[in-house]
Amino acid sequence: MSSSLKAQSYSFGPFTIPPSTVFYETSLTFAFVNLRPIVPGHVLICPKRPSLLLKDLSSSEYSDLWATVRAVQAVVEESKGAGGSNVAVQDGPEAGQSVKHVHVHVLPRVGGDFERNDDIYEEIEGWGPWKNTNQPKIQVPDDADRSERTLEIMGEEAESYRSKF
Amino acid sequence: MSSSLKAQSYSFGPFTIPPSTVFYETSLTFAFVNLRPIVPGHVLICPKRPSLLLKDLSSSEYSDLWATVRAVQAVVEESKGAGGSNVAVQDGPEAGQSVKHVHVHVLPRVGGDFERNDDIYEEIEGWGPWKNTNQPKIQVPDDADRSERTLEIMGEEAESYRSKF
Repeated sequence: MSSSLKAQSYSFGPFTIPPSTVFYETSLTFAFVNLRPIVPGHVLICPKRPSLLLKDLSSSEYSDLWATVRAVQAVVEESKGAGGSNVAVQDGPEAGQSVKHVHVHVLPRVGGDFERNDDIYEEIEGWGPWKNTNQPKIQVPDDADRSERTLEIMGEEAESYRSKF
Repeated sequence: MSSSLKAQSYSFGPFTIPPSTVFYETSLTFAFVNLRPIVPGHVLICPKRPSLLLKDLSSSEYSDLWATVRAVQAVVEESKGAGGSNVAVQDGPEAGQSVKHVHVHVLPRVGGDFERNDDIYEEIEGWGPWKNTNQPKIQVPDDADRSERTLEIMGEEAESYRSKF
């Protein structure tokens, strides 16, 4: 373990993350490599304080999490020669959260790394930290089944949110 | 257009977003509803200054973007009775970015809204702002094809990043 790292252990939900796999941390956030990366450079960024949802973070924890994501994304993209990344949070069990601890996926992408770009999402969903998952294959509804909305309907929806800020 | 909104028009890549569909803005960021939402309450959050990638944002724009995401997520989840959300950025064409302007997807999720949680990723990939896309169906590699890595290999990868911060 590098002497520059401060913590002796890192919790990620029920798991203890080996310090040697943690490559960056602040007082509130840590970043670590994957046992089962979806693409080279696929890493996770977590708050140190165990928290289920983004909304459970303090303002400081939240802003530090995203500042850390930015620093980490730059490093892994440069390391892997990536032109971009998928950045994704499954915020809550309803959203497919696999480990009950806030974690941001950063997946640096290189042209042609997946046969099709959207395969990456399948892999995020199927990802688990220390075990294989065995999920059934996707059955996708036709895109044409989703119709465009009128400006009036969209404006009404926007107004319903506007009043709540 | 609500008198509380400051801008007269909003650019999203090559598109002009109707002000009536914008429901929240700061000096740097705006949030708007979708023509073709994947789930009820699916909204987008963008920097006002046209920027391709997250790394093209200033520190102020970046932190304001994520602070806005947090505020917006709270409102749309409450409005839709959602317990969580998918929060996702396709940061760059290599990552499947559909419109060349940074945008954060927030998709509030309700239990059972999709037959399977991972269908949401298909829909994000297939999403386009003003037109239907016609993408081929996914062919997913078997999860078992991805093997677990040794702690030594993981530690070496972590070390390669550690020195770059």
